[in-house]
Amino acid sequence: MKFLSSIFLGLIAFLAISQENTFNLMPVPSEYLIGDGKFRLRKDFKISVSGPSESRVYGAANRALRRLDGRTGLFFIQDRIDHTDEDPNFAMQIEIDRTGNLELFENESYQLSVSPTKINLSAETDIGALRGIETFLQLLDSDESGYYFPEISIYDRPRFPWRGLLIDVARHFMPVEVIKRNIDGLQAVKMNVLHLHLTEDQGFRVESKVFPKLHQLGSDGKYYTQEQIKEIIKYADERGIRVVPEFDMPGHATSWFVGYPELASLPGPYSIERRFGIMDPTMDPTKESTYQFLEQFIAEMAALFPDQYFHIGGDENNGKQWDENLDIQKFMLDKDIQNNYELQSYFNRRILEILTKNNKQMVGWDEILQPNIPKNIVIQSWRGKEAMYEAAQKGYYSILSHGYHIDLGKPASAHYANEPLPNENPLTEDEEKFVLGGEATMWGELVTPETVDSRIWPRTAAIAERLWSPDFIYEEDDMYRRLEVTSLRLEELGLQHNRNYEMMLRRLSNGYNFEPLKTLVDIIEPLKIYARHNQGVKLTSYAPFTRLADAAKPEAIIARNFRKFVDLYIQEKDPETLYQIQKWLVKWKDNHDSFKKLANKSPILRKAVSLSKDMQSSALIGLQAISDMKLHSRKWKQESKVVLDAAKKPRMECELMIVSAIEKLVDNAN
Amino acid sequence: MKFLSSIFLGLIAFLAISQENTFNLMPVPSEYLIGDGKFRLRKDFKISVSGPSESRVYGAANRALRRLDGRTGLFFIQDRIDHTDEDPNFAMQIEIDRTGNLELFENESYQLSVSPTKINLSAETDIGALRGIETFLQLLDSDESGYYFPEISIYDRPRFPWRGLLIDVARHFMPVEVIKRNIDGLQAVKMNVLHLHLTEDQGFRVESKVFPKLHQLGSDGKYYTQEQIKEIIKYADERGIRVVPEFDMPGHATSWFVGYPELASLPGPYSIERRFGIMDPTMDPTKESTYQFLEQFIAEMAALFPDQYFHIGGDENNGKQWDENLDIQKFMLDKDIQNNYELQSYFNRRILEILTKNNKQMVGWDEILQPNIPKNIVIQSWRGKEAMYEAAQKGYYSILSHGYHIDLGKPASAHYANEPLPNENPLTEDEEKFVLGGEATMWGELVTPETVDSRIWPRTAAIAERLWSPDFIYEEDDMYRRLEVTSLRLEELGLQHNRNYEMMLRRLSNGYNFEPLKTLVDIIEPLKIYARHNQGVKLTSYAPFTRLADAAKPEAIIARNFRKFVDLYIQEKDPETLYQIQKWLVKWKDNHDSFKKLANKSPILRKAVSLSKDMQSSALIGLQAISDMKLHSRKWKQESKVVLDAAKKPRMECELMIVSAIEKLVDNAN
Repeated sequence: MKFLSSIFLGLIAFLAISQENTFNLMPVPSEYLIGDGKFRLRKDFKISVSGPSESRVYGAANRALRRLDGRTGLFFIQDRIDHTDEDPNFAMQIEIDRTGNLELFENESYQLSVSPTKINLSAETDIGALRGIETFLQLLDSDESGYYFPEISIYDRPRFPWRGLLIDVARHFMPVEVIKRNIDGLQAVKMNVLHLHLTEDQGFRVESKVFPKLHQLGSDGKYYTQEQIKEIIKYADERGIRVVPEFDMPGHATSWFVGYPELASLPGPYSIERRFGIMDPTMDPTKESTYQFLEQFIAEMAALFPDQYFHIGGDENNGKQWDENLDIQKFMLDKDIQNNYELQSYFNRRILEILTKNNKQMVGWDEILQPNIPKNIVIQSWRGKEAMYEAAQKGYYSILSHGYHIDLGKPASAHYANEPLPNENPLTEDEEKFVLGGEATMWGELVTPETVDSRIWPRTAAIAERLWSPDFIYEEDDMYRRLEVTSLRLEELGLQHNRNYEMMLRRLSNGYNFEPLKTLVDIIEPLKIYARHNQGVKLTSYAPFTRLADAAKPEAIIARNFRKFVDLYIQEKDPETLYQIQKWLVKWKDNHDSFKKLANKSPILRKAVSLSKDMQSSALIGLQAISDMKLHSRKWKQESKVVLDAAKKPRMECELMIVSAIEKLVDNAN
Repeated sequence: MKFLSSIFLGLIAFLAISQENTFNLMPVPSEYLIGDGKFRLRKDFKISVSGPSESRVYGAANRALRRLDGRTGLFFIQDRIDHTDEDPNFAMQIEIDRTGNLELFENESYQLSVSPTKINLSAETDIGALRGIETFLQLLDSDESGYYFPEISIYDRPRFPWRGLLIDVARHFMPVEVIKRNIDGLQAVKMNVLHLHLTEDQGFRVESKVFPKLHQLGSDGKYYTQEQIKEIIKYADERGIRVVPEFDMPGHATSWFVGYPELASLPGPYSIERRFGIMDPTMDPTKESTYQFLEQFIAEMAALFPDQYFHIGGDENNGKQWDENLDIQKFMLDKDIQNNYELQSYFNRRILEILTKNNKQMVGWDEILQPNIPKNIVIQSWRGKEAMYEAAQKGYYSILSHGYHIDLGKPASAHYANEPLPNENPLTEDEEKFVLGGEATMWGELVTPETVDSRIWPRTAAIAERLWSPDFIYEEDDMYRRLEVTSLRLEELGLQHNRNYEMMLRRLSNGYNFEPLKTLVDIIEPLKIYARHNQGVKLTSYAPFTRLADAAKPEAIIARNFRKFVDLYIQEKDPETLYQIQKWLVKWKDNHDSFKKLANKSPILRKAVSLSKDMQSSALIGLQAISDMKLHSRKWKQESKVVLDAAKKPRMECELMIVSAIEKLVDNAN
């Protein structure tokens, strides 16, 4: 530790502008200095841990040792690390001062130094050490002599203290193992909050012992038992990750009303919602019985979820049920409540009282930022950064999820560029401190346990970096390079984003060779934003999320690479680049016949034939554009544009991601 | 039901000898009659269920509907099936008489008829209906007009009432989700017993509230809580699968002694065993305190596991600790116990008393078949069929696992041919009834949660068929054809046997294109029986099971197909066959350079380079053997044999599975 401090003393300023070699680190550490040496990994590699015996480091060190051994096949002699393994002669030394508290603002910093003979990891808290262990694992490299760690000295700490992922387990239920493997993913990229969106119109996902009809009638039998919630919380705690529960109210609450219609603003009966969208059913904020119910319910959940923060949702209340209920109208008149907005504000203050009584801090979507709401709440800004800035200016803590909505299917680069505090932001330095960080939000309309990992990963790693690393780390291509490596490493934790891609292609191919399908799906993406909902099929809870648009990844990397190559070629006219472009185009042109044959054997693919045909036509135009055939008349260009315009049209909720680049080739053809 | 009965009345004899079209059914049903029509599957397909509202059929029908919709992408209108969905106009009618009891000998038969307009499934019990639903799902087919079910009438029932899979969760712990997805696999192939081997020298895997040091000190923290055990049992129950727990005693018990050394025959301290093999630590059968402990422990576990049967292991006690303990020697002298064999018999009788008091039937490995042991026990025969026959002749129930040890890595055909009651067996017809069935045994030395599915599936489906279908269903090639389809269908249940193959290849390839590795691994198999333990590496609990031998499947289907083609070619000299053989050989010959390059970038593969080289050399010889180059001198044959002999040598715990066929080509070369 002393060694490191002295090294860093004079170097910090230098390091801040010199991070050119980012290795495969993601997120990139705050500060580091690279040496020339290599620490050789051999089977006698051993880890010594010192610190409190109940610390999280033992578990993490054991998992790290097994992951390293798994990657390298070295058969480490050390089997299981415990407190009896404290030995200064072991090659790797992990030292911590204390067990960290799993709460906001806890110290997550660490120092890691690799010399040719020794690896030292030190941190004030075990949580910091966990972050350092992941950096250590990311440093593994190899050369002709075998595996090694590069010589390096790292001092690292997060830029923001709240770096989270929301998983909506309500619209589609996600079994415990899905949550666990995603917690592992979060830990690997140094995120520290799992936000569980637990209730929705489409489902109530936690066992309530006080009001059992909530889960019994509101979930189709798909909910977490309280034991399972404890299991998830323990698993997350061991990985230094907070679990923040969200119970969305007063809207998005149909599933509550199936068992307890008396909570709603209009009489029932209610049934679990299968469609998606903003629904009318809303809690009645004027009845004392509503608060009596919520008082008991929140007390039960506050005891179940140990985190200091408790999310009450509060979004997208359309107020229709309130408008239609005469008692509610009378209540508003009596209490001089001007509109539904103020009525929700009244509701929120009542809920805040209950939460305060239970020693919880309230978090809510940006709708809850209403006049007269006390300062001890946290605003989660989903509609834009403005709400976040407004909150900060008024002295509220806030977290950003606008720009991190990974369910919208945007590329990693878009999220990566979403800087919470860009230079031109309106906040003073003091106000900036109220911005706690951000959360990627995995809304659950269109995902199932089979596809959810591919919607979360690897793109969430780019958001993790935005929230952890210094703001001068923003180079997009380098991010993508590291994202690819990170994606592969995430697989070793059990994440299914790559595995299920192939499995889904196999199923779509009805057991036949899926190569022609893969060639197509490799360059398509599901429609972005909410466009999938308007393609003539009804996407409900029980729709088959097993089709082309579900197999296709949100970001088709091969298509991205093709577009990059086309841009490069247009700039530099390099023959190597041209050759690679040509190879792709030929592959896409030649694929159609085998695709047609495959679709004949697998009816689920038949509607994709026209997509495949358009891939072929586009590729053919691309090949013509780069040829020397003197074909490039104005007429050819016009006709090509017509074909390409048609190829851009979405089908099967997907779009071809190579057409825009082929257009550029046409525009640039002689 | 009446319709079916009348059809079958006169046809059973005919059907029994005419099952030529087995579709993709696995296991093949007992009796069926095929029609020419097709039931067209459309989005308005609906299922009506009638029977007791608490029956297992609702859950199963819902899962079936979702699986069908997932495969076909038809967007069925019906969302969730419950008892309000009883409607005679729905296309599929499921009728049951009663909820089945999850116990041995329960009725699992069903009748399924598909006509062009209607599908009827009827069964006495819901468990029978569950079996029928799986048959229904296996019948899905497609043609140019879309998806359909072929016209068929099936009457089906199991040949044996005990059709199980043992999973050893003790030597390597298997998390709950591994167990759940394998339960789904069992249900899909109509097996009905999950036998959990819960304790071993290497780990004690169940929470004991009475003796908490068992799991706290005996498991490295890897155990099922009692809540998780209940979760597993409930999940299995919903799928008509019994869970039989095994607590191995008096040997294989080191992990018990870490917390309770006083149970052992020699003083401790003990620590969790990391090596594999037959270990010395054994319970002391002469101390009353041992039985007092077991009495409390068994009472706790008997209440936790509802199944009527309770497995006490009883295998591989080497008796060394007993020989070394003077008190035990004195006890034997006092009680006139002649040898360790009799002492274990004494122990077993004491345990049997405890089990009887807890209303449990005892099951044990064949060692427990000792004189004077009462008849109300079940013998699980693992050392050979003889013990099973002996047991049956003496009037003991028995189940067969010898020949079904899937951990040994033998081909599916070997297990498939392992008929429990072949024609020449020594049993009378009455004695045969004591043979209850069999169990595939997935012993856990060499498997992890990542690899276990690929060791269980798809081969276990062949065993499932052996135990369910009539004995006249035995054609090997047809079994392999159906096994391939079944393997793909099992993926949709979450099983990882194919997915993790590719994931492991990606990891081994360090993120580079894994094709050259796949070409090699596609034709190698891990060494069979126990040979992997003698290859110079120490395979312990914590060894890295991430290497070539772990990625390689127990049965390399491409190599099998190659061998079949070579046999066919030698018989028939068909040019088409020759062309296919040549294509393979060229691919294998040409692979080596890219493999070498890949191994350069991934040190874990370096020791496999010689395997790849030998694949190349063998393939080259194969190509020479089928060429017309007049090369085939005696000298060439001799030299080739030397090369091929070398290529047969195991490396990295693997062997090339194409060499024997190439030898045949050489032998048959002109």
